[in-house]
Amino acid sequence: MSPRHAKHLLSIDDLTADDIHHLLELTDHMVEINHRPIPKVPALRGKNVVSLFFEDSTRTRTSFDTAAKRLSADTMNFAVSSSSVNKGESLRDTIETISAMGVDAFVIRHKSSGVPGLITRWTDASIVNAGDGWHQHPTQALLDCYTIRTRLNRRDGFDGLRIAIVGDIKHSRVARSDVQAFAALGAHVTLVAPPTLLPPALHDWPVAVSHDLDSLLPDLDVLYLLRVQRERMDDALLPSMHEYSAMYGLTAARAARLAPHALVMHPGPMNRGVEIVVDPADLPGSAILDQVTNGVAVRMAVLFSLLGTGGDLRSETLS
Amino acid sequence: MSPRHAKHLLSIDDLTADDIHHLLELTDHMVEINHRPIPKVPALRGKNVVSLFFEDSTRTRTSFDTAAKRLSADTMNFAVSSSSVNKGESLRDTIETISAMGVDAFVIRHKSSGVPGLITRWTDASIVNAGDGWHQHPTQALLDCYTIRTRLNRRDGFDGLRIAIVGDIKHSRVARSDVQAFAALGAHVTLVAPPTLLPPALHDWPVAVSHDLDSLLPDLDVLYLLRVQRERMDDALLPSMHEYSAMYGLTAARAARLAPHALVMHPGPMNRGVEIVVDPADLPGSAILDQVTNGVAVRMAVLFSLLGTGGDLRSETLS
Amino acid sequence: MSPRHAKHLLSIDDLTADDIHHLLELTDHMVEINHRPIPKVPALRGKNVVSLFFEDSTRTRTSFDTAAKRLSADTMNFAVSSSSVNKGESLRDTIETISAMGVDAFVIRHKSSGVPGLITRWTDASIVNAGDGWHQHPTQALLDCYTIRTRLNRRDGFDGLRIAIVGDIKHSRVARSDVQAFAALGAHVTLVAPPTLLPPALHDWPVAVSHDLDSLLPDLDVLYLLRVQRERMDDALLPSMHEYSAMYGLTAARAARLAPHALVMHPGPMNRGVEIVVDPADLPGSAILDQVTNGVAVRMAVLFSLLGTGGDLRSETLS
Repeated sequence: MSPRHAKHLLSIDDLTADDIHHLLELTDHMVEINHRPIPKVPALRGKNVVSLFFEDSTRTRTSFDTAAKRLSADTMNFAVSSSSVNKGESLRDTIETISAMGVDAFVIRHKSSGVPGLITRWTDASIVNAGDGWHQHPTQALLDCYTIRTRLNRRDGFDGLRIAIVGDIKHSRVARSDVQAFAALGAHVTLVAPPTLLPPALHDWPVAVSHDLDSLLPDLDVLYLLRVQRERMDDALLPSMHEYSAMYGLTAARAARLAPHALVMHPGPMNRGVEIVVDPADLPGSAILDQVTNGVAVRMAVLFSLLGTGGDLRSETLS
Repeated sequence: MSPRHAKHLLSIDDLTADDIHHLLELTDHMVEINHRPIPKVPALRGKNVVSLFFEDSTRTRTSFDTAAKRLSADTMNFAVSSSSVNKGESLRDTIETISAMGVDAFVIRHKSSGVPGLITRWTDASIVNAGDGWHQHPTQALLDCYTIRTRLNRRDGFDGLRIAIVGDIKHSRVARSDVQAFAALGAHVTLVAPPTLLPPALHDWPVAVSHDLDSLLPDLDVLYLLRVQRERMDDALLPSMHEYSAMYGLTAARAARLAPHALVMHPGPMNRGVEIVVDPADLPGSAILDQVTNGVAVRMAVLFSLLGTGGDLRSETLS
Repeated sequence: MSPRHAKHLLSIDDLTADDIHHLLELTDHMVEINHRPIPKVPALRGKNVVSLFFEDSTRTRTSFDTAAKRLSADTMNFAVSSSSVNKGESLRDTIETISAMGVDAFVIRHKSSGVPGLITRWTDASIVNAGDGWHQHPTQALLDCYTIRTRLNRRDGFDGLRIAIVGDIKHSRVARSDVQAFAALGAHVTLVAPPTLLPPALHDWPVAVSHDLDSLLPDLDVLYLLRVQRERMDDALLPSMHEYSAMYGLTAARAARLAPHALVMHPGPMNRGVEIVVDPADLPGSAILDQVTNGVAVRMAVLFSLLGTGGDLRSETLS
């Protein structure tokens, strides 16, 4: 499948390594547009991009919204309380109704895995999964790949790159999407977490597993820290915040043991004092704000790939 | 009164049959625009359309918002809690203040009948009534007329058309506006409801009344189902949901007795299992999603009619 | 400092009289634009203006939003609950993250004095203070100056103009900014308030003080009424609403004692029956709606001054 001809972006699973490379190259063009004095092109003028977030996320919604506007699409946001979708029929009616007003793409976030895929049955619009349950968050994985690719100068792939993903792997859609994307590009991925926060059936995953962050640090090219969900503490799946920080948090001592070129990444928002104990401003290798900046460009590439008519983007300027 | 020169759209009462025909013909042009690759014209560029919804309705607000954007107007939405309008003065101050920022049209929804009309005294902007109490919802009636006109190929009027409106007529602004519009275009309208849900003074209405839906079904051209408001049950104005469905709900058995060309319509959102028991996807005659699609085009026609400068819309394209 | 080259607008304190005059002259151009059939120019096309309101204010937010759109900037609104900024780190993360998506200006309102200034350290974007604690509200002062300048035909300054500011001076950012701006332009300002609502160290302020509104009325050119905050009553800093109205409210009797040319101003929203007892529609000298209208033009001037590239605005029209 070439993403240029794909209709939806539901999962990294649906993309080949070539597909990912193609989207990252398209992102290069978007970064160039974003550096112009007027960072806008008419590529998606008249297209209607609707974000439908059943879980709140100002950060991700804003990133998609900015991306759509830079391509001159019209945007609309629906904040939907999850109460209105207790019945599948009701969700279907909502989608069919909004679709009937004329929608080209839905950007969907939902607390249940698989909902974006389900929605593809009820509309002719393109669906972009902006996070579904513990399942997938494909644009996060693509922006993470793009950040590593540019910061570590790895345009041809991630062969031999050592990446550790640290934290609550079990409940993380970011981890699932990142593992697939990093591995597809050739990286060696190690998951680092207490046993209670690892998924039960890891034998399918193209990863190594470790419970000892400290022994890995000097050899890492990328240290990827997940957000600790405080509610997991209440479920007794995590030790105290203090113990978690002691074992898995990025302290100044741990930061000092990273290689000079190593990147520190985080999907945000950060829990200061828990998974990040050192100020990121003091981390020469922090790529966290690059991730945010690249998020807009990657989402422009995804929307253009799904909705664009295949014109030459480089020759476009805003009239 | 020709709507081309009218300043406000407050009630179907203010429109002649010619006015309605004129707006429906204008809607034809809007439908053509909506089918273009870039469904947008600069007709209302620089105009400021403000929606002021004192009752929440994402569906109607979005429809107006989409309509305004397709005509290149700027849009702003105010969600106002009804608490802030306990005093008439406060509502007046709100309107005068927003107006002073430069507003060309207010789209108003309010729980009290007559508020949109009241507001015309306090602003130079055009007022579009998007639903006031039990009184009027004129754009709903126009989109319903447009849907019947196109689906049943009735460009010259509704003479001889048999339309039944079923449900809580008494508390329905949709029913009031629809009855006036359908009758103005020549249709024969029958209201079907339990006596507790009929208005007290029906002798003024150009309608027949029936309590027996089943006997009407085979002769109908349009079966228009109203939304059942669950709060009416609490007021003991309605029997149980189950009883209501049994007497007035659209079941598969009832759907089978409709003529093949008959339309099923509903203003949305639907109460599945109450007024609609059969899946609309299984109804060949369902016009419910057409209503939503036509809603955008009709609202474009209304906004253009009130705010446009009378240029030839057909020659406009987005530069 | 010339505002044409300033990066931020944090306080009237940072502006010279020449700076203020320059911004008011720029506002003249914006008023001309706002009177065009299409009140829009492409001056800030591609610029991203983000409003970040930690205190709710639909009125001020909408005014900035309208101003940005008339200059063709893109706009985004974040309503932030104050709970998420208990820690300075968290506010910093929020600012850095939104900035990383590509922001040209933040419009900030915050309950704590000094926050807009603090934020300048964390972003390359321009900061416009839209009200911080009891400290400053500079665009309010500029729109008040512009209103007096045009209504009283005082293009060259306010020398000899007599202005009384009445109400809760102590807790008012509007009063602080207005006093500085009015005095910088040469006006003679008198503060009128009960002693409990005056700031403790008034000797630094370029003002006279009075507790007797009635004796001042016949000589005033401008009567500026502040909004009474009902919560001050609970703090026992104010007598009852009734007593306040009796001593400081604008009654019909007091209005009759104003000079025919005198202006009545108020930053809004008004507490009817408290600081304004007479209907403003009955006040020939009310400039309250002019303030609102001028607010949009002044904010256009401020945004253009901070973000514009210095092109000749007068020759711009929307293509």
